[in-house]
Amino acid sequence: MTGFSVAKREIEFFVDFASTYSYLSVMRIGSLATAAGVSVRWRPFLLGPIFRELGWSTSPFLLQAAKGAYMWRDMERQCSKYGLAWRRPSEFPRNSLLAARVAIAGEGQPWIAAFIRRTMTANFVEDRDIGSPEVIAGLLREVGAAPNELLAAAASEPVKAGLRTQTDKARQRGIFGAPTFVVGAELYWGNDRLEDALADAAGRQ
Amino acid sequence: MTGFSVAKREIEFFVDFASTYSYLSVMRIGSLATAAGVSVRWRPFLLGPIFRELGWSTSPFLLQAAKGAYMWRDMERQCSKYGLAWRRPSEFPRNSLLAARVAIAGEGQPWIAAFIRRTMTANFVEDRDIGSPEVIAGLLREVGAAPNELLAAAASEPVKAGLRTQTDKARQRGIFGAPTFVVGAELYWGNDRLEDALADAAGRQ
Repeated sequence: MTGFSVAKREIEFFVDFASTYSYLSVMRIGSLATAAGVSVRWRPFLLGPIFRELGWSTSPFLLQAAKGAYMWRDMERQCSKYGLAWRRPSEFPRNSLLAARVAIAGEGQPWIAAFIRRTMTANFVEDRDIGSPEVIAGLLREVGAAPNELLAAAASEPVKAGLRTQTDKARQRGIFGAPTFVVGAELYWGNDRLEDALADAAGRQ
Repeated sequence: MTGFSVAKREIEFFVDFASTYSYLSVMRIGSLATAAGVSVRWRPFLLGPIFRELGWSTSPFLLQAAKGAYMWRDMERQCSKYGLAWRRPSEFPRNSLLAARVAIAGEGQPWIAAFIRRTMTANFVEDRDIGSPEVIAGLLREVGAAPNELLAAAASEPVKAGLRTQTDKARQRGIFGAPTFVVGAELYWGNDRLEDALADAAGRQ
């Protein structure tokens, strides 16, 4: 009966738009996933509520000065290694709530991957405030989506609840940072695990 | 005058014997460093005092349950990927004070790399208590070192002070976790950065 089986080569990508290391994976995953024959399901969520449950008021990169200083230098080196543009944002972490809601509202749309990449570039290359509706409207327009419709959807109760649910699901699955890739029941945390996660997904039927 | 210049292809390896990800790098670095033409300077230190300064009473893998659960699964996968033996220790984190003091006492000795590898294997493959003087004495004997002499040295004030100084230096250099590799003024944190650190060291004169 194998002729009827459906290949399940899929990776779930839990992404927070404020997350520096998520930027690396968002920019890298397209060509790698295509080469591996794996499809990407975008799972926008918020790390903030998960951090708050640990008693943290903000990013560990702010709460731990040495770790924060290291991260900024590491991001420079990583972007150089991967050939990615990079500018340290003047505000960190940026408010990623609006971008996440828009990504929830646009789930499954043909422009969603382009929107996620474009928004990451706005934050981490162009130093723009992705918390601003004007900025997000401009990015949506650039990727061929309808800004007014999507900003209205992002402000609607079902989309707000959808993002809360996605964040709850992330926590229930044991996710504690971003990016996190999920393949079946396996979690892969961090841009450094992207290749391993794709290899796992590519090997599944 | 280049004929008189001395190649400075060196990597400093800050290692805590209780650290799971340090186990991966300890077992991997020998052949990789040789292939890169880089010499390894072992820097045994303790993460405990650095964690306590952040207000943490123990390892973040215990304080954050989701991160801890992830780490144990990730270690299984990583060991499988690298072809390394692995057994989850029945006690974590093990007390690494004695092993670190012995490694300080044995700095520069011909058996030091073998002792560090052997001690990591005792902790992370054989589930033995590396905090016990009897266990450490046996490991020292196996690598051709003199147990009585080294246990006495480990209990001496200069060696105790030497470990405190090394831990202070680690903190002053911005180290916040293990393994950390230092090449010149660059820090590389985590087993995932071992190759990058070696490439950096190999490229220096």
